[in-house]
Amino acid sequence: MEWKRKHILGISDFLPDEIELVMDTARSMEEVLSRDIKKVPALRGKTVVNLFFEPSTRTRTSFEIAGKRLSADVVNFSSSGSSQSKGETLLDTARNIEAMKPGILVMRHNASGAAHFLSQRLSCSIINAGDGSNEHPSQALLDLYTILKEKGRVADLKIAIIGDVLHSRVARSNLYCLSKMGANLWLCGPATLLPREMANTGAILTNNIREAVTNADVVITLRLQSERQRAAFFPSIREYSLMYGLNEDIFSLAKDDAILMHPGPVNRGVEITNDLADCGRSVILNQVESGVAVRMALLYLMAGGAHDAD
Amino acid sequence: MEWKRKHILGISDFLPDEIELVMDTARSMEEVLSRDIKKVPALRGKTVVNLFFEPSTRTRTSFEIAGKRLSADVVNFSSSGSSQSKGETLLDTARNIEAMKPGILVMRHNASGAAHFLSQRLSCSIINAGDGSNEHPSQALLDLYTILKEKGRVADLKIAIIGDVLHSRVARSNLYCLSKMGANLWLCGPATLLPREMANTGAILTNNIREAVTNADVVITLRLQSERQRAAFFPSIREYSLMYGLNEDIFSLAKDDAILMHPGPVNRGVEITNDLADCGRSVILNQVESGVAVRMALLYLMAGGAHDAD
Amino acid sequence: MEWKRKHILGISDFLPDEIELVMDTARSMEEVLSRDIKKVPALRGKTVVNLFFEPSTRTRTSFEIAGKRLSADVVNFSSSGSSQSKGETLLDTARNIEAMKPGILVMRHNASGAAHFLSQRLSCSIINAGDGSNEHPSQALLDLYTILKEKGRVADLKIAIIGDVLHSRVARSNLYCLSKMGANLWLCGPATLLPREMANTGAILTNNIREAVTNADVVITLRLQSERQRAAFFPSIREYSLMYGLNEDIFSLAKDDAILMHPGPVNRGVEITNDLADCGRSVILNQVESGVAVRMALLYLMAGGAHDAD
Repeated sequence: MEWKRKHILGISDFLPDEIELVMDTARSMEEVLSRDIKKVPALRGKTVVNLFFEPSTRTRTSFEIAGKRLSADVVNFSSSGSSQSKGETLLDTARNIEAMKPGILVMRHNASGAAHFLSQRLSCSIINAGDGSNEHPSQALLDLYTILKEKGRVADLKIAIIGDVLHSRVARSNLYCLSKMGANLWLCGPATLLPREMANTGAILTNNIREAVTNADVVITLRLQSERQRAAFFPSIREYSLMYGLNEDIFSLAKDDAILMHPGPVNRGVEITNDLADCGRSVILNQVESGVAVRMALLYLMAGGAHDAD
Repeated sequence: MEWKRKHILGISDFLPDEIELVMDTARSMEEVLSRDIKKVPALRGKTVVNLFFEPSTRTRTSFEIAGKRLSADVVNFSSSGSSQSKGETLLDTARNIEAMKPGILVMRHNASGAAHFLSQRLSCSIINAGDGSNEHPSQALLDLYTILKEKGRVADLKIAIIGDVLHSRVARSNLYCLSKMGANLWLCGPATLLPREMANTGAILTNNIREAVTNADVVITLRLQSERQRAAFFPSIREYSLMYGLNEDIFSLAKDDAILMHPGPVNRGVEITNDLADCGRSVILNQVESGVAVRMALLYLMAGGAHDAD
Repeated sequence: MEWKRKHILGISDFLPDEIELVMDTARSMEEVLSRDIKKVPALRGKTVVNLFFEPSTRTRTSFEIAGKRLSADVVNFSSSGSSQSKGETLLDTARNIEAMKPGILVMRHNASGAAHFLSQRLSCSIINAGDGSNEHPSQALLDLYTILKEKGRVADLKIAIIGDVLHSRVARSNLYCLSKMGANLWLCGPATLLPREMANTGAILTNNIREAVTNADVVITLRLQSERQRAAFFPSIREYSLMYGLNEDIFSLAKDDAILMHPGPVNRGVEITNDLADCGRSVILNQVESGVAVRMALLYLMAGGAHDAD
């Protein structure tokens, strides 16, 4: 299969074959990363701009390292200390960056749809590194990569996603990605944070964490994103934690070889107990490690693939 | 002509031949930027430090991309998170950076004369990327480049600069640059923002925007820099906008093939209407694009030219 | 001697032979820095992450420039705009960075022991670029390098360190480094800022600045770190300055060829007079210059040496 996609805005419109191509390419990149010199010249002379309007550690750094290991020039642009404070619109800021001819724009914004909006107005390639509570496609792809590495397959696995599904772009992208690849998905959270229409994807919705985790192959617990919660969706963090926090007792209901995932940053003691985050079945740091390989794959495919006219 | 200039502090002391040399060099750089691999090894092993004491998007990023496309190592230093917050003087901060042997220091500071001040005290080359309301030479050179590309010449063109001329380093640098190249310059703004001594350069001063724009070949509208206006130079932004904001009606007084420029970031609805900023005669984004080529030219000339002893 | 050290956490456990090896390597690096192309491919394909939880100008920039001149990819991570603001622990942040496979982590943190803490929990190499009031080993090594360059030796020199010894990681690292190399060390400050146990290293403690400076070969005056002083260790900055500020009168008690050092950033008029900071015997900027060579040496040795298993 040949890569034809110009932008990566979300997983919702990805074909399974495209997902497989990303996985194959990421495997090649992982081989590069196992070398002493973790660098290939694939993107030499290309500029990757990280355009981040929200604070981020791992995603921004992960894309920066991925770009540099492909020999791209990486330029970081963050909203603090920028023209945004001078009242410039998002579109004007982005058009200005575009006029400097970056090959690829990696962007994060707190508004859902920001990446789609710009993709219709700019000519350069865009990777959505998180837009509001909509999508975070590279996270879903690295989660898939991590699961495949641990389990060898995704089809027919029971995968439970637990927490604030409503506000989570990670949940949304994982839902699209894992259901396309044939997983049996369970979504679990308080009713206020569990949108009924998500059942349309074939996922099973439940408010009972024990039901969701029982016999699961993979348990993904979401970060409680207090920064996105303006309304009162649950009585208190303490109550949320008691009802939907993952602990040893609940995780013991999963299969013996189940793995535990979290997109980070982890609120220890809130959505997951301290010990469980570090236990032998936790692959949280493997996810981060996979992230560099998967993002190298995305940059590589987008820089080299035959692009659709927009 | 050979480049002999060690610093680029302002356009006021540039010779027309030097300006032509920058234009010629920028044309070569534009050719590099048209390639798939937009990178040449000219500054390999040189360090360019971006020393920015004011927030900036396009200028800092433009210099960073220009430096990287010449294969320089680019190091960003901004005042937030720095020794300035520990009470270090500007001179001490700059001397410290200089002791690390950068080839070129690109600096922005809110005090007029900051770049001149350091140029007399440091041994490395300095590019003034904006000092208070004094000069912003690379902006004037990229504006010239943009006009030349659109019009083929500058001599005898009617060029109107509209707005807060008093506080604008862009206006001041453009005034020097365009008058040296033979343009018929008109400066227009409220009397409080239009210094009378600027008539000494041969520019015509007017408070009447219709007079300034009529039959103009080029209309440059300035950003209303509310961050620099501490005194009450006009009654309100709304009144300023009504009197000196550029709209379709006024711009129609210019020549049919007139072009419209703005140094950005644009306050849409203040100094220019939303539609006009995006119209077919607007070359605002061309200016940004030219910026990378012109800044590559400046870095290239300064790194390679025979330097005067300071 | 072969380099076997995996981490550089402090000078306290360095052997004199190791210190000599750093000095020798830094001399080679200084030769590189004297070239027109100040760059060697030694760390090509290696990633150096600057993980800074405190604001810093010279140290962060010095390591960044050092890394880039060795052809490493350098990634800056600072605490502002990061996951720390989302409540992530230091260890989780660092483990996430580690999972992206940097070769070397250069870290600064306001907690004494932060680098030791992480070195026991991460597998990548760590350079402590300052931890609270504990150690700042690269500063001590560049100070030693500067003294050796000026004086040819350290053994039997009278070296006075003046100021807030208690809170100074620079004083602590210099104390270890210079006493290992055979200097006659004098520590001077108000009794509240001069820990008695430091006499165990063989250093002489005094509250009398004139006694400390008399016949000194090297005078190191410390920055008054008001940001670390929560308790009232002295009546006022003015009184501190009168008692322990270095001025021409006091410095004239030192040897005729004495040199004057300061780790920066300098509070002019507090711990040192304005004129003295710029006098011909001040080597403050030489220290900054030495810093790049010494940090290149550290990165070079750590990247290439045979590492102990942790």
